[in-house]
Amino acid sequence: MLQTYFDTDLLNRPGSRLEIATPALVLDLDALEANIAAMAAWAKRAGIALRPHAKTHKCAAIGHLQMQAGALGLCCAKLEEAEVLAVAGFRFLLTAPVVGARRIDRLMALTERCVEIMVAVDDAANVEALATATEAAGCDLGVLIDVDVGQRRTGVTSVEAALALAKRIARAPRLTLRGVQGYAGHVQHIAGYDDRRRASHESLATLAAVRDRLEAAGHPCPIVTGGGTGSHALDPAAGVLTELQVGSYIVSDVEYDAVDLTGDGSRRFHNALFVQATVVSAQHPGFATIDAGSKSLAMDGPAPVVAYGAPQGTAYECSGDEFGRLTLPKGSKPLPPGSVVGLVVPHCDPTINCFDWYHCVRGDALVDFWPVDARGCSA
Amino acid sequence: MLQTYFDTDLLNRPGSRLEIATPALVLDLDALEANIAAMAAWAKRAGIALRPHAKTHKCAAIGHLQMQAGALGLCCAKLEEAEVLAVAGFRFLLTAPVVGARRIDRLMALTERCVEIMVAVDDAANVEALATATEAAGCDLGVLIDVDVGQRRTGVTSVEAALALAKRIARAPRLTLRGVQGYAGHVQHIAGYDDRRRASHESLATLAAVRDRLEAAGHPCPIVTGGGTGSHALDPAAGVLTELQVGSYIVSDVEYDAVDLTGDGSRRFHNALFVQATVVSAQHPGFATIDAGSKSLAMDGPAPVVAYGAPQGTAYECSGDEFGRLTLPKGSKPLPPGSVVGLVVPHCDPTINCFDWYHCVRGDALVDFWPVDARGCSA
Repeated sequence: MLQTYFDTDLLNRPGSRLEIATPALVLDLDALEANIAAMAAWAKRAGIALRPHAKTHKCAAIGHLQMQAGALGLCCAKLEEAEVLAVAGFRFLLTAPVVGARRIDRLMALTERCVEIMVAVDDAANVEALATATEAAGCDLGVLIDVDVGQRRTGVTSVEAALALAKRIARAPRLTLRGVQGYAGHVQHIAGYDDRRRASHESLATLAAVRDRLEAAGHPCPIVTGGGTGSHALDPAAGVLTELQVGSYIVSDVEYDAVDLTGDGSRRFHNALFVQATVVSAQHPGFATIDAGSKSLAMDGPAPVVAYGAPQGTAYECSGDEFGRLTLPKGSKPLPPGSVVGLVVPHCDPTINCFDWYHCVRGDALVDFWPVDARGCSA
Repeated sequence: MLQTYFDTDLLNRPGSRLEIATPALVLDLDALEANIAAMAAWAKRAGIALRPHAKTHKCAAIGHLQMQAGALGLCCAKLEEAEVLAVAGFRFLLTAPVVGARRIDRLMALTERCVEIMVAVDDAANVEALATATEAAGCDLGVLIDVDVGQRRTGVTSVEAALALAKRIARAPRLTLRGVQGYAGHVQHIAGYDDRRRASHESLATLAAVRDRLEAAGHPCPIVTGGGTGSHALDPAAGVLTELQVGSYIVSDVEYDAVDLTGDGSRRFHNALFVQATVVSAQHPGFATIDAGSKSLAMDGPAPVVAYGAPQGTAYECSGDEFGRLTLPKGSKPLPPGSVVGLVVPHCDPTINCFDWYHCVRGDALVDFWPVDARGCSA
């Protein structure tokens, strides 16, 4: 199968980008590299570290580019992502609690394969289980107390709960409190820059209050982690976070294109990710059916936007699991079967998770295939 | 990696179903087999053949069960699905046009690996390309003229266009017209049984008119294919289709649970497919965060419905790419971290496409792992 899908004879041939078997996830390496460099440069200016989220790209090759640009390590949302990416030698922070005996067994096994692995905790029974498991396995584990800063997803909801966890962690010979985490997921897509700043700083004040009480009680918190692409330019000024868990900035998407990330309307990050598709039927005037539907484009966000191959103003509409309808602006030339179009992905993370491979391009040439190593690895 | 994810020591142990690493795609084999048997029995009574759609399950093991129950062959929406499933020895109908020189080359290669492969066509240039390619390759290929019966996705929109294609096919030494296809995708989820019947029979009248004109012009159409799970009970009475392209009936989903498929409110097909998830955080009264979000549940349909592990009336809401929020009915006992829940999938096809494996259960035991062989194979 792979022989037919991966037309390796296309590699490095001018124009070969348009001959890729579709639907395909196309990664523009120039834009990707520019985005990684722009975030690294910005973080340096702002005096904050980066621990980018691998849940977005699930790809060792991209993780290495982030590390080369100075990242401290990578975040993972799920244990299985770290299990897969561990072979690449990264330091990991698992940003959600690892719950249950079988998962904790896997975490213990993973600690031996990683330079560093830290995990977020928010529950007393879970900390108890980690204390017992690390002692039994003879493994050291760094933990961060996860604080709910308003997203209402994970994290302790009171200073008292955080203090109780810190005390138990301090008594566990194999656990070390490394700091606190507060991810303001609810803030990232607030469209207005000032509204987003207000919401971000409110969340960070909650996090700072927990950190201060922990430190006052003798539990140092060298790491204060959180933030995301949406709030990356606003968070550092609050002086709370030591590092940012940015994810989507590497490729951007239609959702983030609608968010003013810099406060002056300028773009720091470019669209580096496209779903490339082909017209398979064009029997009606004014529209064409392409070979990308809900199995190739996550449909939880806005509609994808045409980036190339069709006139500006062309509208995409899902037409089933395998197909989409492109409605052309009035007066456009028809798009005959075989026409190739590129769509900016609506929401990068779950769209990437539809595909096993990135088709890497520079300009109009296909130059490489990168695996989405941890695709589907959500357990 | 696979060692940790696939806890093979769980196999065939009573109660082991609840120990599966989550999020997992859980397939209830008793319900699956009952659904396959029910559709086969119904088709036999109705005097119509079945050519089930493999785009739903993408799984050779399920395809074999459908063939054993009397199916003529399998439909695929995409060439790549057939490329992957060809090793299992099925007969295939590709229900959408195969467009472009590189894809047609792949189709030619595939004809040599298949007992039978037929393809839908709707475009003169595409038929011309198939005529040339089959002659050059020395391959015989059966084609069906795809007719737009109201979905406006693929298919010719006039009798004249169909006749022109049939004439060209008749002149191509290696192409054989096998019949016509008219898939009424727009009809399948119409909630009212009588409304659905009216829409289905209207679509089928369009298809019959094309078939009649083709046959009158000397182009026999032994195959008249279309229909789906939503219209399966209504289509045969129109006397047009020779076979049904049913897909979702094998497992059902929340979308189809809302459709009266039998006209008397009784259920012919049972929920055989669940996403099993685990509570990872429960810091707020009244709700719990589980480890299944938009990377494990296609979000293009209604919300998933809790099937087990949480009280009736529990509501699911997506809480990011990796997480979901379960809001419990008032007065419910809390769901502590580690609690296991099962969700009926909102829309089966794209949800299955999120996973690499089915976790097969009978009762409360995990009994097998089946690969989603053609997962992600949309090219």
